[in-house]
Amino acid sequence: MSVLIVGSTALDSIKTPRAENPRLLGGSASHAAVAASFFSPVNLVGIVGSDFPKKYVQLYRRHGIDLAGLQVAEGATFHWAGEYEVNMNNRRTLKTELGVFETFKPDLPPAYRKTPYVLLANIAPALQLHVLDQVVKPKFVIADTMDLWLNIALEDLLRLLRRIDALVLNDSEARQLTLEDNVITAARKIHRLGPKYVIVKKGEHGSILSGPHGLFLCPAYPLEKVVDPTGAGDSFVGGLIGHLAAARGSIDANLRQAMLYGSVTASFCCAGFGLSATTKTTRAKIEQRVAALRKIVAV
Amino acid sequence: MSVLIVGSTALDSIKTPRAENPRLLGGSASHAAVAASFFSPVNLVGIVGSDFPKKYVQLYRRHGIDLAGLQVAEGATFHWAGEYEVNMNNRRTLKTELGVFETFKPDLPPAYRKTPYVLLANIAPALQLHVLDQVVKPKFVIADTMDLWLNIALEDLLRLLRRIDALVLNDSEARQLTLEDNVITAARKIHRLGPKYVIVKKGEHGSILSGPHGLFLCPAYPLEKVVDPTGAGDSFVGGLIGHLAAARGSIDANLRQAMLYGSVTASFCCAGFGLSATTKTTRAKIEQRVAALRKIVAV
Repeated sequence: MSVLIVGSTALDSIKTPRAENPRLLGGSASHAAVAASFFSPVNLVGIVGSDFPKKYVQLYRRHGIDLAGLQVAEGATFHWAGEYEVNMNNRRTLKTELGVFETFKPDLPPAYRKTPYVLLANIAPALQLHVLDQVVKPKFVIADTMDLWLNIALEDLLRLLRRIDALVLNDSEARQLTLEDNVITAARKIHRLGPKYVIVKKGEHGSILSGPHGLFLCPAYPLEKVVDPTGAGDSFVGGLIGHLAAARGSIDANLRQAMLYGSVTASFCCAGFGLSATTKTTRAKIEQRVAALRKIVAV
Repeated sequence: MSVLIVGSTALDSIKTPRAENPRLLGGSASHAAVAASFFSPVNLVGIVGSDFPKKYVQLYRRHGIDLAGLQVAEGATFHWAGEYEVNMNNRRTLKTELGVFETFKPDLPPAYRKTPYVLLANIAPALQLHVLDQVVKPKFVIADTMDLWLNIALEDLLRLLRRIDALVLNDSEARQLTLEDNVITAARKIHRLGPKYVIVKKGEHGSILSGPHGLFLCPAYPLEKVVDPTGAGDSFVGGLIGHLAAARGSIDANLRQAMLYGSVTASFCCAGFGLSATTKTTRAKIEQRVAALRKIVAV
């Protein structure tokens, strides 16, 4: 089945201790859409400016991503610039130029409205809500968020939480949202805000699912070298929902496996700048790494 | 089969944001010995002072721990005092009074020399080497260490590494020892220093085994409440070697499972001050939690 993905479509300038790469294709929706595309057809909703390089449109197309929902507006594409510290765990934002994103209103093409799987990738919760208002009886809705929205749009976010099946957020965000230091307790508190499933991302330490059948600890694929972790979280949730949409059976029966696929897809993302490593991978390579990861955690 | 455990036998005064507990039974050998005792007979090697409370000797005995190697010397028992911060992840040492430990020479009773499984719990590497010099053809030797010895006894530690089968250390120590930020790469470098097996502890994020059959990611049992993590690492390695000594078959065939048992034993340790929660657990409760953990990680 198809996946609807809305989020940011951006140009990222990324600096690490080893290299600097200007204006790479980035944004939460770009990373998530390419990740999901290995498993399911993707309907993308986003906005880019008149400066958006054609090669990136071609990149989306090579991954079979439907672009009927990609708006092109007069002006500059959303541009983010950031810098990573030596250990690649901490990053700071050098620049955020919203450009055409400032006027983004994610109106869905009619053909998108019945997409059964919906990923509200990281953007303002008000925009995520606007998309939710347009979809018709989705089978599964998952939303990602970030600390910024906890700080400046908490009311919208809380409204969103009452309407989604699953929330994905990282451990520090879970702590911030619940004022609870223990992530298991934090996840339990988030259930009370709405979502049946709560997924807490812990970067290189994997992720935790809390749901009606208890906890699941999902491993991260162990990497010796991280080139650029930008978009790893988006790739994780993109791979997750892509795999879920392709699987038969209930969400409960498939979610753990979908997380494992999300985890592995994210590991490819970290191996290159921007989307360069993700776009070079294949379904076969993902399957290989999933099989390897299963062996690594087998007791 | 039996396990020989040498390390510190101490009195710990532990302060957390919620409570303060003076002069609890502690020390690397105490935690490891009680943890191992759920699985195998334990021969303890340590030293205590004339002030050592009888109730703690009884505690060892209740766990069937052989005390022929526990020296009692005139003077004060090793005393450590520490304080944990709110999130229980960071601690600072308030006091270290070596007492009789200053003159500790771990001479083994003749009956201990052929113990097949040897755990050199955290003490000075010179003392760990002294024990190794006395054991006769052990089947498996595992050593734990800490940052202090990396700082003040690195030469001894490097000499030790060439003579043991497995090293256990935490992630920051692995980074310090190898000057390598990535723990997988760090583990690989540690193999070159001697040990066939390297186990990197990551606290609540579990542990990583690197060995001849590749990597194993061992989960930590997810806890909502950590009362006192002191000794959790010692309980982990104690449970690990205790389980290993009780298992049939090769080390390679049993090590992953032994780590899982170590992980669960350590989770009980965290649920109370000092050894209070560990001593209250049972083999049946450990089995229950191991079964639960298997379900939590099953894909």
